[in-house]
Amino acid sequence: MTFSQRLTRSVRDKGNAVLVGLDPRYESLPDAVKTGSVAESFERFCTEIIDIVAPLVPAVKPQAAFFEQYGPAAMSALERIIRYARSKGLLVIFDGKRNDIGSTAEAYAAGILGKDSAWGADALTVSPYLGSDSIDPFVKVCVERAAGIFVLVKTSNPGGGMLQDLQCGTQPLYRHVAEYVERLAQQTDGSVGAVVGATWSQQLTELRSVMPTAWFLVPGYGSQGGTAKDVQGAFRSDGLGAIVNNSRGIIFAHQKSPQSRWQDAVEAAAKAMIEELPLRL
Amino acid sequence: MTFSQRLTRSVRDKGNAVLVGLDPRYESLPDAVKTGSVAESFERFCTEIIDIVAPLVPAVKPQAAFFEQYGPAAMSALERIIRYARSKGLLVIFDGKRNDIGSTAEAYAAGILGKDSAWGADALTVSPYLGSDSIDPFVKVCVERAAGIFVLVKTSNPGGGMLQDLQCGTQPLYRHVAEYVERLAQQTDGSVGAVVGATWSQQLTELRSVMPTAWFLVPGYGSQGGTAKDVQGAFRSDGLGAIVNNSRGIIFAHQKSPQSRWQDAVEAAAKAMIEELPLRL
Repeated sequence: MTFSQRLTRSVRDKGNAVLVGLDPRYESLPDAVKTGSVAESFERFCTEIIDIVAPLVPAVKPQAAFFEQYGPAAMSALERIIRYARSKGLLVIFDGKRNDIGSTAEAYAAGILGKDSAWGADALTVSPYLGSDSIDPFVKVCVERAAGIFVLVKTSNPGGGMLQDLQCGTQPLYRHVAEYVERLAQQTDGSVGAVVGATWSQQLTELRSVMPTAWFLVPGYGSQGGTAKDVQGAFRSDGLGAIVNNSRGIIFAHQKSPQSRWQDAVEAAAKAMIEELPLRL
Repeated sequence: MTFSQRLTRSVRDKGNAVLVGLDPRYESLPDAVKTGSVAESFERFCTEIIDIVAPLVPAVKPQAAFFEQYGPAAMSALERIIRYARSKGLLVIFDGKRNDIGSTAEAYAAGILGKDSAWGADALTVSPYLGSDSIDPFVKVCVERAAGIFVLVKTSNPGGGMLQDLQCGTQPLYRHVAEYVERLAQQTDGSVGAVVGATWSQQLTELRSVMPTAWFLVPGYGSQGGTAKDVQGAFRSDGLGAIVNNSRGIIFAHQKSPQSRWQDAVEAAAKAMIEELPLRL
C-alpha cells in the first residue's frame, strides 16, 4: 500500500481527518508530567497524549523543533515517541520542514522516512525553496518505502505571503509550487502532498482545484484562527484529501479546563474537534 | 562582539576564508575510523578532521542531515563534535536549513544558537520560504547571543532555479530574498548573511552589489564545480565578506590519495584550498 492508501484507510477507519500535533512546550505541560528532565517530561507527556488520541484519530504530527530545542536527549525521546505512536496504529508525520541539495536531501529522506529508517516516520514536511532536485530524493523514498511528504505551499503564518504571495508571471509563487506538487502527486498516487494553512480559506479552495490529487496537511486550525468552515475547501468532493492539524488546542486543553484531569481535557478537546469536522464521505 | 565581528576576527587571524564542511558519509570514511557504530565512527572522524583543520581555517560547517540520518546516537555525536570544534577555537555553522512558523522558529533559534543553547552553534543556515515572521525569531537570538544566520538566497544545486530564478515582477525571486537579507544584515551589523552558491559566478557578483553588508556563505566549491575564480565576486572590496565551503574535497581527500595517511591527505587538501583562495585584504 502507498502512503496515500494508508492515510485513506486510517481516515476511514477512524471516521475523521483530525491530526494531533505533538508540540511539547515545557512551560505549558501539566505539572503532573514535569518530573525528571525536560526530555523525560516530553516523553511522558507525548506518550500519554498518544494513549488518549490513538483510538480517536488517524495520525499525529510531532514538531521536531520542540525536541531539537533541548538537544540529543530530547531527540532520543522523539524517536521513542514516533515508535510508540506507530505501535498504537497511528500514522506519524515528522514535522521538520527539512530539505537540502540533492545528495544531502537523500540523507534526510533515508533517515527519516520508512520503517527501516532511524526515525521511522510515515511522512515528513519538506520545504521547496531549493527546487526540484532537492525534492526528488524524497519522492524516490516515498515510492520505495510507502512513505509520504507534504511540501510547503501556502503556510499558515501571517508573514508567509512575503515570498509565497509574490506575483511571478501570471500567478503567485505558491501556485507555481502547487502545480509542481500536483505533478508529483499524480506520479506517486497522491503520496506527495501539500501544506496549506487553515488561515487561508479562499486559497484552500483555489488550491484544491489546482491540486485535485494531492493530500493537504492543513495547519493553523484553532489557536491560529482557522475554523471548521475555513477548511471545508481543503477536502475533495469524495470527502477525503485533507488532514487538519490542531496542536495547542488539543494537547494543552487542560489550560482552559484547569478543574479537569488534564487527560480528560485533552480527550474532550480531541472529541470536540472530531465533531466540529465531520467527514462527508 | 557580534557574530560578524567574531567571523571577521577569525578570518583575519587564520588569514583565509575557507569553511570546512563536516559531511560524514559512512561509505566514504577512511577504514581506520570505521570501528564501532556509525555514530562513533562519525565522531572519531570529525574529531580528527577538527584537530587537523583547527589551526588552519576559521570555521567548520557540520551538515545536520548526515547525523540526523542515523538517529539520536549520531545527533549526540554531532552535539559533542560542535562542542569540540568550539573548544579548538573554530566557529561552528550548523547547516540545518531550519525554519518554521514564528512560534516554532523560536524553538529552533533558542535551541541551536548561542553558547547556552543545547547545540551551542555559532550560526545556522535558514530557509526563507515561510517569510519574515519565521526569520524574525532567529534575528532576535542572533542579536541576544552574538550568533549568526545564513539565509538561503541562491543555492548551489542545478535545480535551485526552479523557484529561485522565477521572475517575480521586475526581478527573480532570489533578488527579492537578497534585498530582504541585506536589510536584516544592516540591522544586525552583518550577522544575518546569505547562502549563495559558488556554481553561480555571475549571480555572486550581482548579489554582492545587492547585499553590500551581508556575509556570504558560499557552498559548491570543488566537488560541485565552483572554482576560485568563480567565487571572487562574493568578496567585498575590503577582501572580506565571504566564507567558501568545501566538504568532500577536503574531508574525503584520502580517496584521491590512497597512498597517503588519510589525515595527511586532508591537511594537504585544506592547505591547497587556502592557497587557491588568497585573502586580498
